[in-house]
Amino acid sequence: MDKGLLIVLSGPSGVGKGTVCSVLRNKMPELIYSVSATTRLPRQGEVEGVNYFFKSKEQFQDMIARDALLEHAEYVGNYYGTPRDFVERTLASGKDVILEIEVQGALKVKQKFPDGIFVFLLPPSLDELKQRITGRGTESLDTINNRMSVAVEEMNLLRHYDYAVLNDEIDAACDRIRSIIIAEHCRRERFLPYVTGMKAAIEKA
Amino acid sequence: MDKGLLIVLSGPSGVGKGTVCSVLRNKMPELIYSVSATTRLPRQGEVEGVNYFFKSKEQFQDMIARDALLEHAEYVGNYYGTPRDFVERTLASGKDVILEIEVQGALKVKQKFPDGIFVFLLPPSLDELKQRITGRGTESLDTINNRMSVAVEEMNLLRHYDYAVLNDEIDAACDRIRSIIIAEHCRRERFLPYVTGMKAAIEKA
Repeated sequence: MDKGLLIVLSGPSGVGKGTVCSVLRNKMPELIYSVSATTRLPRQGEVEGVNYFFKSKEQFQDMIARDALLEHAEYVGNYYGTPRDFVERTLASGKDVILEIEVQGALKVKQKFPDGIFVFLLPPSLDELKQRITGRGTESLDTINNRMSVAVEEMNLLRHYDYAVLNDEIDAACDRIRSIIIAEHCRRERFLPYVTGMKAAIEKA
Repeated sequence: MDKGLLIVLSGPSGVGKGTVCSVLRNKMPELIYSVSATTRLPRQGEVEGVNYFFKSKEQFQDMIARDALLEHAEYVGNYYGTPRDFVERTLASGKDVILEIEVQGALKVKQKFPDGIFVFLLPPSLDELKQRITGRGTESLDTINNRMSVAVEEMNLLRHYDYAVLNDEIDAACDRIRSIIIAEHCRRERFLPYVTGMKAAIEKA
């Protein structure tokens, strides 16, 4: 059986990665979503192995030491990371895995998984990005301008990715990501053994 | 404006290129179909520039001499070829062009258009291919076996293509080709100027 594909969906903060990912989840139920490990405590209703793999700080540090994480980061005092084992087992079973992650984390994953398909979500315009960043709360103009600069710096990392998807409209963006996944399954290399098998069969007949 | 993409759809004889292409034509009206030049006479209802560009033998030979054809071949005493000008003008206008062609012709096109997207249509199985080849008429077993050998030799040329599409079911095959076209439009390279423009705009602001 063919191995599955690892699809890494990233993009600047405020671009709408989470929303696109959750809509895609409904449209492509066959995709397996990578489950993160975290040291933060479970919230009401969160299920181990579904929402997160919940770990103690010691367990998490042990995973780092064993190179058992594709990437990890600290955020507001807690660790978050992508367990390598879950990704590798799922791919080996022939299923595609999607990983939604911020830009820096994605580049770390690329070092360990150069065969992944790296997809970068882009805002339709600077105005739209500003609106989304502003829409989050009541931040000062300085904070907003700072976030815009960070987002544009992050966009500059597009060159390390394979594909760019414009998030102008959620359904359109999801259709593009779905298309990228289908196209990657059609790469010539995946079919060379199939053709070799046919050639052998007809020569034997 | 971005240039369009040249999509070259090929595959062994009997695989169903023509059928897939005509269904795709309905599903993707925005795709422009490459119009061939030929020296054969127009049949009832055929329209110049729609079905073919009809040429005299002298005109056709002149096109060959001027390198005005991406490829050409002789078939039952008539010439057939792909005018380079039509393809280049359409791509320059930002529209995608699809060219349905047999395996050898596609490889000639690749020499002149290495940037094309080369898609190889594969039969779902040897049995299915045999059935399609047999289904065409009342050929002898020798003829059928010979055609099968040729088809399998042609399949061996898959390694020169970018993508393989299994023609197990016409709608599924068309969806795969559509996905390949959409994915190719999402290649990172096409968006680098967009990001550079955003960076320049925010630095200026």
